Amino acid sequence: MNAQPRPFDDFRALIKAMPDPDEAAIDAARARQAELTKPIGSLGWLEDIAKFLAGWQGGAPHVDAPLVAVFAGNHGVVAQGVAAYPASVTQAMVANFAAGGAAINQICKTFDISLRVFELALEQPTGDITREAALDERTCAASMAFGMEALAAGPDLLCLGEMGIGNSTAAAAIYCGLYGGAPEDWVGRGAGADDDGMKRKAAAVRAAIALHREHLNDPLEVLRRLGGREIAAIAGAILAARIQRVPVLLDGFIVCAAAAVLAALDERTLNHCMAAHVSAEGAHAEVLRRIGKRPLLDLGMRLGEGSGAALAVGIVKAAVACHNGMATFADAEVAPPRNVRGER
Amino acid sequence: MNAQPRPFDDFRALIKAMPDPDEAAIDAARARQAELTKPIGSLGWLEDIAKFLAGWQGGAPHVDAPLVAVFAGNHGVVAQGVAAYPASVTQAMVANFAAGGAAINQICKTFDISLRVFELALEQPTGDITREAALDERTCAASMAFGMEALAAGPDLLCLGEMGIGNSTAAAAIYCGLYGGAPEDWVGRGAGADDDGMKRKAAAVRAAIALHREHLNDPLEVLRRLGGREIAAIAGAILAARIQRVPVLLDGFIVCAAAAVLAALDERTLNHCMAAHVSAEGAHAEVLRRIGKRPLLDLGMRLGEGSGAALAVGIVKAAVACHNGMATFADAEVAPPRNVRGER
Repeated sequence: MNAQPRPFDDFRALIKAMPDPDEAAIDAARARQAELTKPIGSLGWLEDIAKFLAGWQGGAPHVDAPLVAVFAGNHGVVAQGVAAYPASVTQAMVANFAAGGAAINQICKTFDISLRVFELALEQPTGDITREAALDERTCAASMAFGMEALAAGPDLLCLGEMGIGNSTAAAAIYCGLYGGAPEDWVGRGAGADDDGMKRKAAAVRAAIALHREHLNDPLEVLRRLGGREIAAIAGAILAARIQRVPVLLDGFIVCAAAAVLAALDERTLNHCMAAHVSAEGAHAEVLRRIGKRPLLDLGMRLGEGSGAALAVGIVKAAVACHNGMATFADAEVAPPRNVRGER
Repeated sequence: MNAQPRPFDDFRALIKAMPDPDEAAIDAARARQAELTKPIGSLGWLEDIAKFLAGWQGGAPHVDAPLVAVFAGNHGVVAQGVAAYPASVTQAMVANFAAGGAAINQICKTFDISLRVFELALEQPTGDITREAALDERTCAASMAFGMEALAAGPDLLCLGEMGIGNSTAAAAIYCGLYGGAPEDWVGRGAGADDDGMKRKAAAVRAAIALHREHLNDPLEVLRRLGGREIAAIAGAILAARIQRVPVLLDGFIVCAAAAVLAALDERTLNHCMAAHVSAEGAHAEVLRRIGKRPLLDLGMRLGEGSGAALAVGIVKAAVACHNGMATFADAEVAPPRNVRGER
């Protein structure tokens, strides 16, 4: 009776087909690092980034076509008074992105990053998670598939961002659904909730978990019941990048909810991801610990839009420039060190 | 008998004449931040950076002419076996900078930063601090004055870096001289000292402190007796930038030794400085604590050359781009938040 393939099955099949990084490229990058005119390991994380990119890109690391993909969606849970802004601000901010007026536009310009904004049916908010599932399976799967379009332009480094009034509540519900604990452990100030707003956010998460608790063993069910269109799309984008071996910079609290869903399905799904930053949004540091990522930046940011991920592109570009552009000891006729210490 | 002005007197007079930042410019920047299309405080440290630059630059913040100034010097204390590389590597690396092959060249290229390398009599190493003062007062003062030349090109953001085989021992000696404690508290691996090298570094610092201990109450005496030409030059550059209200990005362990000398003279000398990063060189985190600076980056770097400072220019550029380029709520017709939380 139930032998028809279900929409989520495609994604489960993709996860089984995930490729490994190119170990030969990593070895070649490591060998080159040892020849560059600097003490081995002295560029710290920049050396690790170069090797990481080499492995996923399958050769010398490059950042020639970085892309920030911002996914925007609306959330029925705003009816619970969880957001400091009205839902119309999602659309207004999308217009602001198009007009070049948002923070993400300026950061992309600073580091010469392309920006694409993906609207997900802003006029159709998800179901209110305190009363029903956010999405049905077909819509959730379609949102994930839509997210995979972020790879269509062929980025060599993908930064993920989001915009969606109410989505920090959805993300908190996902974390609570995946990891347990109290709602208060996972909700934060979002775009500026006051103390009453925080109470409403926790109450909404509590109600949502109570309503859906029988169905939270499957991470994809957590995603569709508690998440949102943009979060599903981000999960799709991460997975597509994993399949295509495109390195990813995760942004903050909401983007990592999508990542956490994938990690709960299979911990290898995030092997191609770096955490760009740790957000000031309360629980993000704990989320990063759970998904096993150390953030590149810790600057007290909590804006979303992919702003933290885009900011980290500067670091990645510098790492790649050092790796590819530096002279070797032989080139520069610099004596190598008398004693060589291991890499960090 | 001793009424002649002494070479250090000029610097003491300059410190007395240090100007304050422009409070009106800071207020204007703060007011603009509140109007930009983002929750107040959501760009975290980027907002603070914009206000900081506004104050020192006296208007809207800008990073149009950033400069990395790398000061290079040689050190008599290498005779004590403290360095993993021969002293000739200082000159070789200066040639590598000129040829564009060093890490700092690649990072400067990444962020469109000018680079100037200042050689300080590489053929004349300082005195071996275990046996004599590194420099006489006249030479130390001349090195400081030379460092002030870093401002000649009119940078609007000054990054300080250094190159000098043996200078992590000189820096450790300065810290031990300023702050006390055991030599082992302050020495680190530098460019790659092994365990025996670490012992030789600590022994050299111990011997230097013992020799000069009667003269370490004056921070400028600490600088000339235990430091080096490039460290003195960096102190001069920091001070010149302070007088001219040019914001500064401090690099790592050695650059901060110059900063620590100035801070010991007057804590206000570093008001225009940000710590670009915390180095992997052991005691740098403690040094930053002592000079009251929180680092922008923590990437396990320990290269010197100004590499950490240059890397942070990307962050500063993004902060300035957001501040100047973002739309206001009024521009974008985005509703402001229902409740506004204070800045971080």
